[in-house]
Amino acid sequence: MSTYALGLDLGGSSIKAVAITPAGQILTRRNVEFDALQTMDWARRIDSLTGEIQAECGAPAVAIGLSAPGLTAPDEQSIACMPGRLAGLQGLHWTSYLRSPIPVPVLNDAHAALAGETWLGAATGLRNVILLTLGTGVGGAAMVDGRLLKGHLGRAGHLGHICLDQNGPLDITRTPGSLEYFVGNYSIAERTGGRFQSTHALLAARDAGDPAAAEFWRQSIYALGCGIVSLVNVLDPEAVVIGGGIARAGEALFGQLAGVLDRIEWRPGEHRVKVLAARLGEMAGAIGAAGKALAWRGGLEK
Amino acid sequence: MSTYALGLDLGGSSIKAVAITPAGQILTRRNVEFDALQTMDWARRIDSLTGEIQAECGAPAVAIGLSAPGLTAPDEQSIACMPGRLAGLQGLHWTSYLRSPIPVPVLNDAHAALAGETWLGAATGLRNVILLTLGTGVGGAAMVDGRLLKGHLGRAGHLGHICLDQNGPLDITRTPGSLEYFVGNYSIAERTGGRFQSTHALLAARDAGDPAAAEFWRQSIYALGCGIVSLVNVLDPEAVVIGGGIARAGEALFGQLAGVLDRIEWRPGEHRVKVLAARLGEMAGAIGAAGKALAWRGGLEK
Repeated sequence: MSTYALGLDLGGSSIKAVAITPAGQILTRRNVEFDALQTMDWARRIDSLTGEIQAECGAPAVAIGLSAPGLTAPDEQSIACMPGRLAGLQGLHWTSYLRSPIPVPVLNDAHAALAGETWLGAATGLRNVILLTLGTGVGGAAMVDGRLLKGHLGRAGHLGHICLDQNGPLDITRTPGSLEYFVGNYSIAERTGGRFQSTHALLAARDAGDPAAAEFWRQSIYALGCGIVSLVNVLDPEAVVIGGGIARAGEALFGQLAGVLDRIEWRPGEHRVKVLAARLGEMAGAIGAAGKALAWRGGLEK
Repeated sequence: MSTYALGLDLGGSSIKAVAITPAGQILTRRNVEFDALQTMDWARRIDSLTGEIQAECGAPAVAIGLSAPGLTAPDEQSIACMPGRLAGLQGLHWTSYLRSPIPVPVLNDAHAALAGETWLGAATGLRNVILLTLGTGVGGAAMVDGRLLKGHLGRAGHLGHICLDQNGPLDITRTPGSLEYFVGNYSIAERTGGRFQSTHALLAARDAGDPAAAEFWRQSIYALGCGIVSLVNVLDPEAVVIGGGIARAGEALFGQLAGVLDRIEWRPGEHRVKVLAARLGEMAGAIGAAGKALAWRGGLEK
């Protein structure tokens, strides 16, 4: 029977959970859908999942951590701001709700994914790293000198919301022509004049030799490169980790992106930033939340 | 006879120096031109200035700090990278060169200016702040949780080098259509089709009722706003401090910028970022370097 932490990741339609030892061994994992239309079904699911996994593991978790969308409160024990979705999440105090004997840290989901990747994934041991997750939107997080960058309100690391075209449409945060707009899947129909309904379809057409698809893809990767060089000049990370569904494009993304960075990345002393594919996939957030819980318990980090 | 630190700021054509007490009282200040064509004239000037000020103050400084352009070495005792200008600066070990009994911290000039503004200027006591200096180019620095953001190579905080137009010309760091390009004085002739040779002339024409000048100025402030909202989404500062020659435009800048931010700033929970005018002027870097030297001496900060 191993000592383990429980990491929980609340997403838009499902909850990921992982029981993991301090050495990084995964004892069990779950991915459970919840009913988004039923008030706080996600909370009850997390509560019962917590009980089930601890029963399965034959011992209580030594620490529990939670990842969720939104901005965390200064004490990192709740989500302070998450308008529009997951009603009931704002202000919910997870230590109390889960009846945990020790405090449950709450992390923003992108922050948690980066914490996972720096603990056990693509960026293990690195101290200055940024993460971009390319999916419906473009999520992001930054680690600075080994600490997650949270900022004044906990909003730091919204890396998809940088302007790349002053005349572009305003995104969900009101940023004109943002990185999220140029790369995220949500805008693909708009960006391709209605020709493609998903990045997946765009890539399939490109692979089949469609020159228009190849050009749309080129624009998307160029925008990603423009965003990355901007973030490199601001945050100066050692590595950029790229995850999310669109990162599964593999060489079509990483190969073309390398060519863009060769043209526009600032390389003092010939130094170039590492571009790495995320490794933990959909479990990154749960793993990061568990790692944070272990760190809190160990007093390694407040 | 007061205990004081000596702060030195090496610029492109002059050296600023300040003797300042730990309470922030300025005992004396200097601004000395150097001969840029004479090899390392700047270094000899700094050495003699250091002697003169200490003689004037009647006692040796308890700490000395230096601000200079370029990227600092990891041990923060020299500039590791400054290609193209100030030959001899790269690798010069200032503790040895100035024969200081205690280590002389070396700061990037923009980092030093922000350190000054957070110690005794516009952002006193704030822990999450960014600085933009609008002049020939656009300089920048960021403070995160009370620490200067340096990054992996010491390049962090180059806030002027974020892309705002993917199709724009490459700037000195190869960033396409950067904030520096759209706001810096160096590109004003290019941006105005040769009509204006300086931002100063542009503003004078605007004030005299020239509609083309007003439109060029509007574009410049809109670009500044797009850059600020991007940086706010990445770094989430409590305040943005704006300095440099162009900031002397006063209300023409700050008033118009406020209008832009009302349209495009992300304001979770109605929170808005503070926009503050820098207060320390050309002495910010020297004051910041002195503050850092006092912090090193006091062991407050490595």
